[in-house]
Amino acid sequence: MKIKVGIVGYGNLGKAVEKQIEENADLELIAIFSHRNLPNVVDYEKILDFVGQIDVLFLCSGSFSDLEDQAYQLIENFNTIDAFDNHNKIKNYLHVMNQKAMNNQKVAFCSFGWDPGLFSLMRGLIDGLGYEAYTFWGRGLSQGHTQAIKTLPHVIDALQFTVPNNIAENDLAHGWDVSTNMHKRECFVVCDEGYESDVENAIKTMPDYFLGYETYVKFVDQTELDKMKSFAHKGKVLTKGNFIEFSLNLKSNPDFTANVMVTYAKALIKFQKQNCFGAYTILDLPMSLIVKRDFEEIL
Amino acid sequence: MKIKVGIVGYGNLGKAVEKQIEENADLELIAIFSHRNLPNVVDYEKILDFVGQIDVLFLCSGSFSDLEDQAYQLIENFNTIDAFDNHNKIKNYLHVMNQKAMNNQKVAFCSFGWDPGLFSLMRGLIDGLGYEAYTFWGRGLSQGHTQAIKTLPHVIDALQFTVPNNIAENDLAHGWDVSTNMHKRECFVVCDEGYESDVENAIKTMPDYFLGYETYVKFVDQTELDKMKSFAHKGKVLTKGNFIEFSLNLKSNPDFTANVMVTYAKALIKFQKQNCFGAYTILDLPMSLIVKRDFEEIL
Repeated sequence: MKIKVGIVGYGNLGKAVEKQIEENADLELIAIFSHRNLPNVVDYEKILDFVGQIDVLFLCSGSFSDLEDQAYQLIENFNTIDAFDNHNKIKNYLHVMNQKAMNNQKVAFCSFGWDPGLFSLMRGLIDGLGYEAYTFWGRGLSQGHTQAIKTLPHVIDALQFTVPNNIAENDLAHGWDVSTNMHKRECFVVCDEGYESDVENAIKTMPDYFLGYETYVKFVDQTELDKMKSFAHKGKVLTKGNFIEFSLNLKSNPDFTANVMVTYAKALIKFQKQNCFGAYTILDLPMSLIVKRDFEEIL
Repeated sequence: MKIKVGIVGYGNLGKAVEKQIEENADLELIAIFSHRNLPNVVDYEKILDFVGQIDVLFLCSGSFSDLEDQAYQLIENFNTIDAFDNHNKIKNYLHVMNQKAMNNQKVAFCSFGWDPGLFSLMRGLIDGLGYEAYTFWGRGLSQGHTQAIKTLPHVIDALQFTVPNNIAENDLAHGWDVSTNMHKRECFVVCDEGYESDVENAIKTMPDYFLGYETYVKFVDQTELDKMKSFAHKGKVLTKGNFIEFSLNLKSNPDFTANVMVTYAKALIKFQKQNCFGAYTILDLPMSLIVKRDFEEIL
């Protein structure tokens, strides 16, 4: 019997999840839901008509805008998996999702991507072994930060690239303390004429995403911005002296995140069948849940 | 209340575990057991006198020789953690340990080191996400292979270095199939005069450890061998194209293995307290079992 799934939100991540589902013969896509009026997409307002027809919903709206509110509504009627990445809100998000999932006998898998997600797992491992974990991202387009900029008034389009500081990488490789900022956030923005300084100020003072970070804002026209678009991303989690290092170098950030979500969505069904209701992160799950080969081959 | 622990086997790994226990205020070392007559070490034959006084035993004998037999005896009376690394025997080992642990209401944590151990976890992750995992080891001294050589007749002392083949690494980095052997096994051996060809043959035909591998044997005198001794080791698990890569670069292989064992020994006690009897590998355990910091900080 196939696992029946739905997608909420039809941006880059939603489209990548759709592609991944097509490549997984054991999943059946029932519907894609969005507020936007698009062909082959069901109006989000009709989602409750699908209660009982969908085993797990992929929540693919932006963490900055819709995801939190949608998740709190949807977990009352559906199992959900998301890649929630608003670092400062995650504690409260997990708490609320856990309560609601338990009350409604549902399972929520929260923050399953590569960061948070696989990188969380590596930070957990390094922390558990008694070392300090350091994370570098980029250079690459941050979906979450890009969406955060796009929600601002007078912003027409934007891209946010996260750039690691090689001096900080060098400090750590030598086993030294980090002597400088670890990253720079490069924001390329198309905005309404005359609002440049308002927008720049709004970006630099945005809590959770930019406030307290080294942020650079450059205004460009739409043609220039379109040329910059790239789904490639990379990053690494490491110890001082790099004696433990985990790195990702991705051609497509949304495709890889979608693969992580689809892989774990199958594990979610096992939790539902065993009545293990509540909210879980990747730190709560043993690797055995996703391993396909024989154990002894992997060991 | 401190966790009371014992060590079985007092070679490089046993000594490294002893050092780790000293650095962990929540562990109390009750006794070290060995067949060898050493100061401050209890005769292995007296180990049953300690039943009820030890929460978990670190099994630090060599996988090739004593570990399997000792484990089957000891699990009847003690919880155990080991770094069992005989790849071809691991399936049967896990099966037997699981049965015996359940029958005796004990917990066995099997194959907790860096490989098997952390590298198994990474192979599990890569496999779960639908990719093929490749492992390189070295250049570094393999404790298990060194011990395997030392058990042979007429061998006085030995060291086995595992050397990765950079052509194979290059193949994979380009996303190609591997065109050559991935490793060479370099064996440096001190043996009784006149038995060189017997020993070389015995090494090269040893199942599980050397048979089917590219193996190089060189005979040296004890002074030369002593100069080669080094506990440093390294390795990596990766995908074709290296888009996922996990690497370790260790100053001391036994110290790091001991850290993994001590970290997970504390988690074992949680399983015992919850009556989760049986044998477990690192693939069965969620990272949350070892994480020290707040979850949201790690995520």
